[in-house]
Amino acid sequence: MTWNIAFDADDTLWHNEHLYALTQKQFYELLLPYADQDNLHQRLLDTERRNLQIYGYGVKSFTLSMIETALEVSAGKVEAAAIRQILDFGRDMLTHQIELLPEVRATLEVLGARHNLLLITKGDLFHQESRIAMSGLGELFSAVEVVSEKDPSSYSKIFQRYHLRPGSFIMVGNSVRSDILPVLELGARAIYIPYEVTWEHEQGDLTGVAPGRWYEASSIAEVPAIVQRFGTPG
Amino acid sequence: MTWNIAFDADDTLWHNEHLYALTQKQFYELLLPYADQDNLHQRLLDTERRNLQIYGYGVKSFTLSMIETALEVSAGKVEAAAIRQILDFGRDMLTHQIELLPEVRATLEVLGARHNLLLITKGDLFHQESRIAMSGLGELFSAVEVVSEKDPSSYSKIFQRYHLRPGSFIMVGNSVRSDILPVLELGARAIYIPYEVTWEHEQGDLTGVAPGRWYEASSIAEVPAIVQRFGTPG
Repeated sequence: MTWNIAFDADDTLWHNEHLYALTQKQFYELLLPYADQDNLHQRLLDTERRNLQIYGYGVKSFTLSMIETALEVSAGKVEAAAIRQILDFGRDMLTHQIELLPEVRATLEVLGARHNLLLITKGDLFHQESRIAMSGLGELFSAVEVVSEKDPSSYSKIFQRYHLRPGSFIMVGNSVRSDILPVLELGARAIYIPYEVTWEHEQGDLTGVAPGRWYEASSIAEVPAIVQRFGTPG
Repeated sequence: MTWNIAFDADDTLWHNEHLYALTQKQFYELLLPYADQDNLHQRLLDTERRNLQIYGYGVKSFTLSMIETALEVSAGKVEAAAIRQILDFGRDMLTHQIELLPEVRATLEVLGARHNLLLITKGDLFHQESRIAMSGLGELFSAVEVVSEKDPSSYSKIFQRYHLRPGSFIMVGNSVRSDILPVLELGARAIYIPYEVTWEHEQGDLTGVAPGRWYEASSIAEVPAIVQRFGTPG
């Protein structure tokens, strides 16, 4: 009756994307002399996507991409003070306090009494570790894995490392692309909890995929009931 | 007779610090209008140290610290073109090809035939994973661990995760602070292979520490003989 239930962290346990959205807003205002918001949004997204292969995910990558975009859209006319501001935006994000989503701790405690809980998050190792520490949730998980990309191969490695059968594994997260589709592909189960904002890069389509092996929840508080609905691990 | 032998990566398996040194040289030239080399060197080191707590290790952190130092030493007068250059320095470092140190592959193959080899490296998860992939050495290790800091607690976690006894563990690396002292503290053994350049932050003193449980080698090729000298795992 014991499931291995893994949780994504950013925008599943705590707010994250809204901090990016807030920072982007400040960034657009800062560069208003050079480009309008829609244009800046597209340019920044393009820069981030182009840099993913070199930088990977995370706030430091995002900060470097903001600086690059500022240099580009201003055709090199951006002032040093604006670059300084962008560095501060990044630093503020990195030191921002953790805001847990509602019901997170209580739900994890309920689930942890019966099931084996893991945390699987993507991004910058150093920053994610400090956020996990700041969240105070670390001790609720038997294992914490920070990975550079959430794809079937990285989940497979985790299954091997902890001797987990896909039939006994449920992934809970807000990203169709990173949390749901790859584990369904491996034969595991998933619970999709959409967050208020989703980065374009993380969007995906679940239409017709693996019926009965995933459910959508509107809050983490619904997870225990869905786990019961999944019945006995295979 | 089987030891668990873990290798550091940067400056133990492949060149790394000389790439930082090269980039620093370019950085000092770029900012020569604002400060002389000695001053710049100290300012950059101060910025890096101050930022370690927020950024962690790695090239992206280093790039952000170079930009911050440039803004500071120029009192905001640095031109956008110079910031662009610094971004390029970082990108060049991140995409630079791997240069293995001499005898690395041959030595790992010899050792791997008898012993269990691990790779334990510190720094940016995404960049270290791509370097390990580029190095072509990945399959020689039974486990690869990228950690945010190499201290007794992070080594302890690895011992637990792989069920390793400290008495059966040897760490091989170039940093007294990160590779040697913490494992000696845990009762394991170590082989110290100094690299031609050591970042000030990684220096440390081994005088009088745990005699007989560590040796210094001038090249990785000496590791097999030292492992024999250690005798049978405890």
